[in-house]
Amino acid sequence: MTELTPAFLDGAKALLGPKGWSMEADALKQAASPWRGTWPGETPFLAMPGSTDEAASLVRLCAQHRIAMVPQGGNTGLVDGGTPHGEITVSMRRMTRVRAVDTLNNSLTIEAGAPLVNAQNAADEANRLFPLSLGSEGQATIGGLISTNAGGVAVLRYGMMRDLILGLEVVLPSGEVWDGLSGLRKNNTGYDLKHLFAGAEGTLGLITAATLKLFPKVAKATAWVICKTPQDVVDLLALTRDHAGDTVTSFEIIPANAIEMVQKDVPDTRDPAPSALPWRVLVEVSMAREDQARDTLMSALSDALERGLADNAIIAESGQQAASFWHIRETIPLSKRAYGTAINHDVSVPVSAIPEFLDATEKKIHAVVSEADIVAFGHVGDGNLHYSACEPKGASDPILSNHADEITRIVHEQAMAFGGSISAEHGVGRLKRDELARIRPPAATETMRAIKAALDPLGIMNPGRVVSV
Amino acid sequence: MTELTPAFLDGAKALLGPKGWSMEADALKQAASPWRGTWPGETPFLAMPGSTDEAASLVRLCAQHRIAMVPQGGNTGLVDGGTPHGEITVSMRRMTRVRAVDTLNNSLTIEAGAPLVNAQNAADEANRLFPLSLGSEGQATIGGLISTNAGGVAVLRYGMMRDLILGLEVVLPSGEVWDGLSGLRKNNTGYDLKHLFAGAEGTLGLITAATLKLFPKVAKATAWVICKTPQDVVDLLALTRDHAGDTVTSFEIIPANAIEMVQKDVPDTRDPAPSALPWRVLVEVSMAREDQARDTLMSALSDALERGLADNAIIAESGQQAASFWHIRETIPLSKRAYGTAINHDVSVPVSAIPEFLDATEKKIHAVVSEADIVAFGHVGDGNLHYSACEPKGASDPILSNHADEITRIVHEQAMAFGGSISAEHGVGRLKRDELARIRPPAATETMRAIKAALDPLGIMNPGRVVSV
Repeated sequence: MTELTPAFLDGAKALLGPKGWSMEADALKQAASPWRGTWPGETPFLAMPGSTDEAASLVRLCAQHRIAMVPQGGNTGLVDGGTPHGEITVSMRRMTRVRAVDTLNNSLTIEAGAPLVNAQNAADEANRLFPLSLGSEGQATIGGLISTNAGGVAVLRYGMMRDLILGLEVVLPSGEVWDGLSGLRKNNTGYDLKHLFAGAEGTLGLITAATLKLFPKVAKATAWVICKTPQDVVDLLALTRDHAGDTVTSFEIIPANAIEMVQKDVPDTRDPAPSALPWRVLVEVSMAREDQARDTLMSALSDALERGLADNAIIAESGQQAASFWHIRETIPLSKRAYGTAINHDVSVPVSAIPEFLDATEKKIHAVVSEADIVAFGHVGDGNLHYSACEPKGASDPILSNHADEITRIVHEQAMAFGGSISAEHGVGRLKRDELARIRPPAATETMRAIKAALDPLGIMNPGRVVSV
Repeated sequence: MTELTPAFLDGAKALLGPKGWSMEADALKQAASPWRGTWPGETPFLAMPGSTDEAASLVRLCAQHRIAMVPQGGNTGLVDGGTPHGEITVSMRRMTRVRAVDTLNNSLTIEAGAPLVNAQNAADEANRLFPLSLGSEGQATIGGLISTNAGGVAVLRYGMMRDLILGLEVVLPSGEVWDGLSGLRKNNTGYDLKHLFAGAEGTLGLITAATLKLFPKVAKATAWVICKTPQDVVDLLALTRDHAGDTVTSFEIIPANAIEMVQKDVPDTRDPAPSALPWRVLVEVSMAREDQARDTLMSALSDALERGLADNAIIAESGQQAASFWHIRETIPLSKRAYGTAINHDVSVPVSAIPEFLDATEKKIHAVVSEADIVAFGHVGDGNLHYSACEPKGASDPILSNHADEITRIVHEQAMAFGGSISAEHGVGRLKRDELARIRPPAATETMRAIKAALDPLGIMNPGRVVSV
């Protein structure tokens, strides 16, 4: 644990004010406890700056005293990136203000500590859409989502979080503030710093606010489709896009065994169309006019049924029915955990490689643990699968846990073999830092280290995450 | 001019082979002559590597001998970024191969020296769309377009060039190759290097190939609309998006005086709907189904006419008629030059600020040169205007030229005052380097300099462009 001198502590307390810091045991423990209980850490000091100026003064003080800090949003990360392990914690929870909404420019400026849902709501109130959407949206913050370049269920059409930012305000490791807030869509005035801070997991600076892109609101048509094979699923995606162009906003794959899990675990879920076939697709088409969206989705699915790419398809008749489809999808991660041990992975491969990847990886895992239940679900439209090997609930012998490392090695090697990634949307943190340093082209890791050393020469911004220097 | 030792020359000639270099006076002169004749430079050696390996060997040799180089694509840049001024030239003209097309993954891998039209054609042959489109597409290359983060007429829907790349292959200033080619849509494995090289104008590395995003093909509905005021134009954009969502792919503003210019200069152009009102909008809605696109555009325009936001509107009845609308738009830059002196600018402001920016800037220019003819046209949907002050053809006294610096100062100060940018899509190069260093927040310029020094410590990659170190 970092030792804090009286000089640092006095200075920090004075500049943050009484609401801006805590050293109470409970508060420190909570700050060091990630969302899912994994990787509990420790922290000697919790800073909660109330403004960009306060954040900048704090970082300057840290630089002066060589104090390492961990920027923290909702602490919902899954790669041990935002949990302190001895460093002081800089929580953005007090900076949640919507600074500006510009409906003609379709932009929204909001502070980093605001949870995603605040941005969605502010957009909605202005009759606009902020499209990023994911399970933890009530807790995950704008700053954290930018720092980890979050994905979610609308990436297919709207891109990742980095694609949704127009400008950033960042406290640099020196304590200087870079005011890069901007509503401009075109601004070629040098290296694109916002894209460097986005996805850097707080290792290059502390994001304090962002200007986000807003979009026109759209009406959705949602369908639940039953398919025989992953190849049919991938072909269905191409066919749907033939009919709908890029108005296909979500295209999620759900295996039948995940539905069984969810049904056992969550009493109010109902399989919309029970079938012995192994795959479901949740597809959403979004257009300005509901009739057009529905019409387009219907024509795509008729075509798919005719061509044998789908066995059955149900278009939701109401928002409520669409929500019930999504409920199944969103409940999988929770149910999976309730179900027993699960070795989880966040991989991506080119969309075209999904069928072969699924087939080959399952075979290799079954060669190690023949009983392993494979649950591969998620954003097939982006080539991104949340790939888990699960132990059936109540299995007496924890056979899977004993092979966790081997299974992870197989999944990651397979992803790489198909030109994929072992960290599609969750990031690097401490969890995948060393494995990625091994896997990445050395030229990339060297370049990242050079950037880290150049921008944070004291090594005080979220040290040890993403790259070791 | 850089002096080249026999050791360097012998090494370079040997590794490039007889087709891979030239020292002929004509070839050297051409390599140092930018597209529009501005900023003629000089170069002692023209390298034309035929492969990534050759390019890497050349850069290694340059690093060894401390030889500065200028990467060059189609040499169509407008900010003196790709023209050698004494450095050797590394032309990518021989690396034009399409390496792979993956229709299920919607991606295309192509070498950096290929002109944009090759990527468009390769996509088209695969029944896909590569959406970037701009005037110089027959000559501007993929590598140059990425390095300058080019824009064009479809940014409103598809984004800038950086938004269209999935992966890059880059020769680093050390001569090491970073193979970051990837068809992945989600890949959070560290700092996003592709976004650092994109827009870096060749100052951080030499881009040799790229994997680009492809999109479903769409059908277009195109309209020519007549408006009274810039405020009506901006409101029309919002209204069109209310009807069409984000299927509005282009929204270009054209002033009536530009049409007069084009008509005088280019005999085969016809004003589709002569009117005394001062503004035209070229609007395009793109959807998978032509009937839907047309229907949607029609309903938006009916609404606009009813509300008085538009005075007249013509929807093109054929691709040919749509092309004739676009011809007027695309001919403006050429006509403007034929017309006489024009002081040109590439500025952006938030879309909502366009009306006030246009009004205030024109007043300030007229206070200096009351006869100046203002031609402001372009990508109003992105807040990006090509803003020119023109001298009427045949004016006996070149009054405008004498005030060029003052007019540029006014336009740039105005753009900044409205939260805008003085380099929206053309980049920095040598032309705007020092002015941007003055205008940018110092924290941004310092960060850029630190990155440049860290990644190119010898200062041999396109030195003096973007930032001075």
